[in-house]
Amino acid sequence: MSNFELCPRFEGAVAILSQRWTALILYQLMYGPGRFCTMTEQLGVSGKILTERLKSLEKQNLVHREVFPETPVRIEYSLTEKGMSLLPVMKEIEKWSQEWIEIN
Amino acid sequence: MSNFELCPRFEGAVAILSQRWTALILYQLMYGPGRFCTMTEQLGVSGKILTERLKSLEKQNLVHREVFPETPVRIEYSLTEKGMSLLPVMKEIEKWSQEWIEIN
Repeated sequence: MSNFELCPRFEGAVAILSQRWTALILYQLMYGPGRFCTMTEQLGVSGKILTERLKSLEKQNLVHREVFPETPVRIEYSLTEKGMSLLPVMKEIEKWSQEWIEIN
Repeated sequence: MSNFELCPRFEGAVAILSQRWTALILYQLMYGPGRFCTMTEQLGVSGKILTERLKSLEKQNLVHREVFPETPVRIEYSLTEKGMSLLPVMKEIEKWSQEWIEIN
């Protein structure tokens, strides 16, 4: 470990992924674009927090927000290329969790 | 996304990894066993927080603490098999961060 130096890029990635709900939201959107109400229901997160997180993810260019001019208006969230490229990370977390995380 | 169901195992893994400092500590220990003082220095984390995190990681069977009866006593932290098996996750985060995280 003596030569270890913490890479600021790695630290930056961890800072994004470790914000509460963020990894779960990104993971969910890997299954396809989602509407706000479906997302809150499936994740069990409050609307207030989901709004905050989605805004932050949009700002970081991880999530794309699209407004469809229908009646009533439809808003969908999806992953950008940057967001989608987290798929291998999520897959490895998934694999690890299947092997090591026990549920009661 | 309509068929998405949040897997409690995945949620459990994310809960562990997203605790502040945890991913960085595990990442650091992948470079080899570490002593407390070296770890605080390299990570820039306070001794109080590192103590808390290491205790929690030991409890979760991710980190092993070994006491060497020398004078003065030497204490080393290393990854357990469960901790070590997070290597592919860390490698993918590393890869992603190299491609997508900008540093100023």
